[in-house]
Amino acid sequence: MLAVAFQGPQQVEVVEKPEPELLAPDDAIVRISATGVCGSDLHIYHGRVQIEPGFTIGHEYVGEVVAAGDAVTGVAVGDRVLGTFQVACGTCWFCRRSEYHKCDVGRTFGHGAGLGSLQGTQAELALVPHANLTLRRVPDGLGDDVALFAGDVMGTGYHAVVDGGVRPGDSVAVLGLGPVGLCAVQVALLSGAARVIAVDAVEQRLAVARAYGAEAVHLTEQDPRGVVKALTGGRGVDVAIEAVGDPRALDMAIRMARKAGTVSVIGVYAERVDVHMGLAWIKSLRITGGQANVIAHLDPVLELLGSGRLDPTALVTHHMPLTKASEAYELYDRREALKIVLTP
Amino acid sequence: MLAVAFQGPQQVEVVEKPEPELLAPDDAIVRISATGVCGSDLHIYHGRVQIEPGFTIGHEYVGEVVAAGDAVTGVAVGDRVLGTFQVACGTCWFCRRSEYHKCDVGRTFGHGAGLGSLQGTQAELALVPHANLTLRRVPDGLGDDVALFAGDVMGTGYHAVVDGGVRPGDSVAVLGLGPVGLCAVQVALLSGAARVIAVDAVEQRLAVARAYGAEAVHLTEQDPRGVVKALTGGRGVDVAIEAVGDPRALDMAIRMARKAGTVSVIGVYAERVDVHMGLAWIKSLRITGGQANVIAHLDPVLELLGSGRLDPTALVTHHMPLTKASEAYELYDRREALKIVLTP
Amino acid sequence: MLAVAFQGPQQVEVVEKPEPELLAPDDAIVRISATGVCGSDLHIYHGRVQIEPGFTIGHEYVGEVVAAGDAVTGVAVGDRVLGTFQVACGTCWFCRRSEYHKCDVGRTFGHGAGLGSLQGTQAELALVPHANLTLRRVPDGLGDDVALFAGDVMGTGYHAVVDGGVRPGDSVAVLGLGPVGLCAVQVALLSGAARVIAVDAVEQRLAVARAYGAEAVHLTEQDPRGVVKALTGGRGVDVAIEAVGDPRALDMAIRMARKAGTVSVIGVYAERVDVHMGLAWIKSLRITGGQANVIAHLDPVLELLGSGRLDPTALVTHHMPLTKASEAYELYDRREALKIVLTP
Amino acid sequence: MLAVAFQGPQQVEVVEKPEPELLAPDDAIVRISATGVCGSDLHIYHGRVQIEPGFTIGHEYVGEVVAAGDAVTGVAVGDRVLGTFQVACGTCWFCRRSEYHKCDVGRTFGHGAGLGSLQGTQAELALVPHANLTLRRVPDGLGDDVALFAGDVMGTGYHAVVDGGVRPGDSVAVLGLGPVGLCAVQVALLSGAARVIAVDAVEQRLAVARAYGAEAVHLTEQDPRGVVKALTGGRGVDVAIEAVGDPRALDMAIRMARKAGTVSVIGVYAERVDVHMGLAWIKSLRITGGQANVIAHLDPVLELLGSGRLDPTALVTHHMPLTKASEAYELYDRREALKIVLTP
Repeated sequence: MLAVAFQGPQQVEVVEKPEPELLAPDDAIVRISATGVCGSDLHIYHGRVQIEPGFTIGHEYVGEVVAAGDAVTGVAVGDRVLGTFQVACGTCWFCRRSEYHKCDVGRTFGHGAGLGSLQGTQAELALVPHANLTLRRVPDGLGDDVALFAGDVMGTGYHAVVDGGVRPGDSVAVLGLGPVGLCAVQVALLSGAARVIAVDAVEQRLAVARAYGAEAVHLTEQDPRGVVKALTGGRGVDVAIEAVGDPRALDMAIRMARKAGTVSVIGVYAERVDVHMGLAWIKSLRITGGQANVIAHLDPVLELLGSGRLDPTALVTHHMPLTKASEAYELYDRREALKIVLTP
Repeated sequence: MLAVAFQGPQQVEVVEKPEPELLAPDDAIVRISATGVCGSDLHIYHGRVQIEPGFTIGHEYVGEVVAAGDAVTGVAVGDRVLGTFQVACGTCWFCRRSEYHKCDVGRTFGHGAGLGSLQGTQAELALVPHANLTLRRVPDGLGDDVALFAGDVMGTGYHAVVDGGVRPGDSVAVLGLGPVGLCAVQVALLSGAARVIAVDAVEQRLAVARAYGAEAVHLTEQDPRGVVKALTGGRGVDVAIEAVGDPRALDMAIRMARKAGTVSVIGVYAERVDVHMGLAWIKSLRITGGQANVIAHLDPVLELLGSGRLDPTALVTHHMPLTKASEAYELYDRREALKIVLTP
Repeated sequence: MLAVAFQGPQQVEVVEKPEPELLAPDDAIVRISATGVCGSDLHIYHGRVQIEPGFTIGHEYVGEVVAAGDAVTGVAVGDRVLGTFQVACGTCWFCRRSEYHKCDVGRTFGHGAGLGSLQGTQAELALVPHANLTLRRVPDGLGDDVALFAGDVMGTGYHAVVDGGVRPGDSVAVLGLGPVGLCAVQVALLSGAARVIAVDAVEQRLAVARAYGAEAVHLTEQDPRGVVKALTGGRGVDVAIEAVGDPRALDMAIRMARKAGTVSVIGVYAERVDVHMGLAWIKSLRITGGQANVIAHLDPVLELLGSGRLDPTALVTHHMPLTKASEAYELYDRREALKIVLTP
Repeated sequence: MLAVAFQGPQQVEVVEKPEPELLAPDDAIVRISATGVCGSDLHIYHGRVQIEPGFTIGHEYVGEVVAAGDAVTGVAVGDRVLGTFQVACGTCWFCRRSEYHKCDVGRTFGHGAGLGSLQGTQAELALVPHANLTLRRVPDGLGDDVALFAGDVMGTGYHAVVDGGVRPGDSVAVLGLGPVGLCAVQVALLSGAARVIAVDAVEQRLAVARAYGAEAVHLTEQDPRGVVKALTGGRGVDVAIEAVGDPRALDMAIRMARKAGTVSVIGVYAERVDVHMGLAWIKSLRITGGQANVIAHLDPVLELLGSGRLDPTALVTHHMPLTKASEAYELYDRREALKIVLTP
C-alpha cells in the first residue's frame, strides 16, 4: 500500500509499504478515504518533534473498516468510520476515570517510537488498536471533510471551551485562529458565549471567525486588549483561550482574563517560559488546558457535527491526492492553507 | 398613582393608591414603563395562591429610577432599569453563597403577606428594596418587551438549563411550552444542545419552538417518547426539563431521561404527588430545579439579551394599557396570550 | 465445586456445581476466600427479586485469581483480588463517560437472568467477566473482611456522599444505619462534614455511628428533626442521605434538608411512591442518588481502605463457613447481623 | 487608643491614635481582644509591600462590637466577633457571584492606600466596613486563638484544598509548612485525602504536620519526589499545593502532580517567573489558586472550627501584649514563631 513517510526535515515521501495486519483481538484495519494534514504534522516535518525516518505520519482520518478482531464490538467490517488521533486502553487507572488522553499505554498515530510506535494514517490502510474506543461510525450524511475533524481538531477546540468552563452568557477571547482556534471560536459560540473576541494577524482567518459570529480583532492593527475592555465593561473576559502556544499569547491571555477568570491553554508548549505568575496570583486565575482529551469528547462532538450545529467545512481550504503529499506539506509550510485533506 | 389590585378570585381592578416612599437606605422607587402578566399572577387571580384583597399584584417590570436611598450605588435616579421578581438582602447565610432565591428575608413582589408584603409592579410606581441587588441598568438598545423577561421568565428558563447541567452536545427535552418552557428551549439551544425536543399540545407554541430550532412534537397527536428514542439512538435525553408542574409531565420526563441523566423540574409544584421513584432509582437520575435563582442568573441573562443571543420578542403577543388590566387577565385566563405587556 | 443456590423463597442450599471456565479473553476465574451476605441477597431470599431456582447467589467477594484470559492485563494468576458487584464492558456509550453502573451490557453477580445471568460469588469459584475493570489487587495488609466492602457496600456509601456533593464544613444527615448507611456516615465524616446526624431505631447501629463520630439520634425515642434544627441553627442539613428506601424516610430527608440543599437517595426503590414535590420545589432541592457507580468509585475507595482512613471492620458481626449458608440467611433474615462473611 | 504603626522598614511602633468612628450605616467598631501577626505583615515590615509611615497594620482579629451602624443586622453591639482580612461590598458584579476576594471596591486591613486605606487591626479598636459580610459571631466555646484563624490563615488553607478540587481518596502534597501550609494539611486530611505528603526544611513544622496525620518529608534530607512516587504507585499526587510562593516550589509541584492533576498555588507571587509550561501542557495540568476568597469560605470554616474538626491551636507559638509589638515583629522576622497573638 502507499503511505506518506517522514524521511528527514522538510522531506516527506509517498512510499510503498506492506499492508498492516491485525495484531490484537480489539484491533481493526481501516481503508482510509480521507486524511488531514495538521499543525502537529508540521512539527515533525520541521524536525522539532523527532521521529524515525521511514515512519508513516498523519493522525486525522476517515475510512472503511476492512478487518476487525474478535473483540471489536463497536464497529464492524464495512462500516464507514472516523477515529481519534490517540488510542487508549480503556481499563487503566486513567482510562477508568475517562482521562483517556493520559492512558498508561496510550499511543498516538504517526508520531514514531516516542509516542508508541503507531504508524500514521496518511496511507491507504491503517491499523487501529483498541478500536472500540478509537473508532465511531460516521453519522449518516456527514462528509469526510467534516468527519475527520471529530477526532482531533474539533475535539481540541471543544476541550478548550468545555475544560475552560465557558458558561452561557460568558465573554470569551480566542487568541490564535488556526484550525484549533477557529474550532474553539465555533464551540464557544455554540456553548452560549454572549460574545467571542477572536484575535489573529491573518485577515483570512479573521474573516472566518467573523463569519462564525465572533468579534474579529487584528492583533497588531487593532488593540485587542482595548476591544476586550470596551466589550466587557472594563472587566475582561471570563475565559481567555490561548490557541497559539507562545508566551506572548499566554501573557495577553492572562491580561485579558477578568479577575477570578480562566485561561485555557490549548496551544502547544514544550519548554519553560516566562509567566507573569504575580498577575495570575493577584487575579486568582485558573489556568487549564494542555493536551486535549478527544476520546472523551468524541461522542458530544459527533452529536454536534451530525446535527449540523458545528460545521468546520470552511476550514478545509485544499484537497489533494495522497500521492501529492510532498507538495501538500510544502504548501502547508508556507501557511497558505488552513486544512489540507489528502485522499488516497 | 394607579395600581392593579387583586380584589378576589377572577377579579382585579385598577385603583388609585398613594405613591410609595423610600423606607430604607438601599430602597429605590421606579416609575414603571412596562410590566408583564405572568403565569404566577394567574394563580393569584384564580385564588389558588391567596393574598389580601386590595394588594397590588405583578412582578415583571421595567422603568426609570425616580428616587434612591443613600446606600444605592448600583443604579441612579434617571437610570432606565429592570428588576427581578424577588428581592434578597445580600448578606444572610444563603445570600453569602449566592443562593439569593432562598434569602432569609427574601420577599416577592405582588404576592401578599405570605411572601413578604411587597406591593406589586403592575402600577405606575413601585418601591424596590435592596436596589443594588434587585435592579440593573437596561443595556443600550434593549426594548422594554425584552428587558422585562430578564428578571423572571428568562431567568427561570436559564435556571432550568444551567441548573440542569446541559452541556454542549447534549440532547434535551422540554415538556410544556408556556413562556418559561419556550425560554428554556432558547437557552438549551444557546447552551449547545445538539437537539431540543419541545413538547406541547398547542400548535401555536410548537410553532414558536420550531422557529427557535427545536424539534417540535405534539403531545397527543404525535408520540413524544417515540421521537425521543428515535433521535437519541434509543437512549433518552441527557436532560429532561419539566416546565408544566404536573405529575404526568414529571412522569414523562423521568421516562424520557437517559440512564444517569437529569430531570430539571421548573414547573411549579405545591403538593404531594405520585412519583415513580423506582424508575428514577434504577436509572440513577438526578432531579434538580425548583424555584429559580433569578438574581444569580441576572448578569449572564442580561449579557445574552443585550448581545441579542437570546430574544424572547416572539413571546410577547399582546400590549395593553395598565388601565385595561381587568381585560388583560380575562384574556390571559382564556389562554389566548403567551405574554401580555401592560403599559401605565 | 460448592455454591449457594437459591431454591425458592426462604430457601437457599449449598450444592455441588461444575467449575466455571473462561469464556472470553478478558475473563478471569477467582477462587473465593470470603464472600458477604448483603441486603440485596435478602430481597432474593424473600422472593421479591425473582431469580431462577438453582442460580448461585452472592456478589461481594475476595479471592485469588486461578485463571485469566489473554486480554487480562490488570491482574494475574496468583493475585489476591477483590471485585465489584457489577461488571461493565468499558467501551459502550455509558462506560466511555465512566457511568459504568449504566453499561449497555452490564451484568450483576447472583441476580439471575434479569440482570445478565451471571452466577454469584457465594461459591468456591467464580467466573469474572471484564476482569480488567472488575477486579483489583487487594492492597498489602488489607484483610478479607475489609476488602470485600470495596466493591459494593462502601462504594455505595461513597456514592451517597460524593454524588450528594458533600463539601468540607457541611452538615449531613444519614437516615437508616444498615451497612450502607453506616458506610455513608463514615464517608461523610471522612469528607469533612462538620457534623453527621445519624438516625435509626436500632440502638446497636446507633452505637456504631456514635463510635464513628456521628451525632446518633433514635428515630422514635428522640426527635430527629428537632435535633437537626438545633444543630444547624434552624436551617437544616446541607445533604440528607436516605439509606432506607422508604417513602417515610424520603419525606423526612426532604424536610431535614436545608433550602437549596441536596437529598441523596441511596436506599432502594422499586415502585411509585408519594413524594412531597411541593416542598422539594419551594426549597429548590436537588435529589440525587439511585443505584451506585461502584466501578467508578473503586479506586478512591481502595485508597481509603488501604490507607486505613475508612475501616468497616465494625460492621462484620458474623463469620460462618460457606456450608452454613442456609443458617446464615436465616440469621440475617432475623436482623441479628450487620454483615455476615462466608468462607468457602 | 493604642495602635501598631508601620514607621519604616524593620520598624514598627505602638502609638496613640484617635478612636475610630462609624462612617457608613453598615460599619461596626470592634474592640480588639486578640490580633495575629501574619506572613503578609512581614512583607510590609521588610518594605517589600510599601505602605505609608504611620499606617496601622494587622488584619487578623477577634473582639467585641462596641458600635454598629443602622444597617448592621448580622451582629450587634456586645457580640464577640471575628472577621476577615478583606472587606467586600456584597453587591458588585463580583460579589453577586460570591467572588468576594475580587470585589470592585474591596479593601484590605492594614495595607495602606494601595489596598483601600483601611487602618489595621493591631490596635485597641478597629473600624470594620461592610460588617454584615465581614464579621461573624464567635461560636460558643471557641477561644480567641482559634477564632482569629477563621478570617485569614485557615480560610486560605481551605481555599487551597477546596479550590484545588481535592476529593475523598485523593493523594495530596503540600509544599511549604508555614501557617497556611499547615492549615492546608489539616483541611486536606479533613477533606478525605487518603494521604497528605507535607514537605518543608524545618523539623518543627514537619513535626506538626506529622502530628496532624501527614507523611512529613524533609525537603533536602529526604527525597520528596521519590516519596511521592513510592506512595502513589509512581503516578504522582492528584493535587499538589504550592504554599511557598517560590518558582522552585512551583516547579516541584508541577513535577509531583499526576497527569491530569491539579497544582493549587496559594503561596504569594508578585513577579514574572520561569514556569515549565511544557510539562504542565503535556500533563494537562490545571493550575488554580491565587489570593483566597476567605469571605466565601468563612461559614464552612467556622462550622469546622466550631465543631472542633479543624483546630489550629498547635500553630500559636507565642502570646505577647500589643505593647510589645516591636519585639514580636523582630521575633517573627527571625522565624522563631509560627503564629504570634497580640493582646491589647
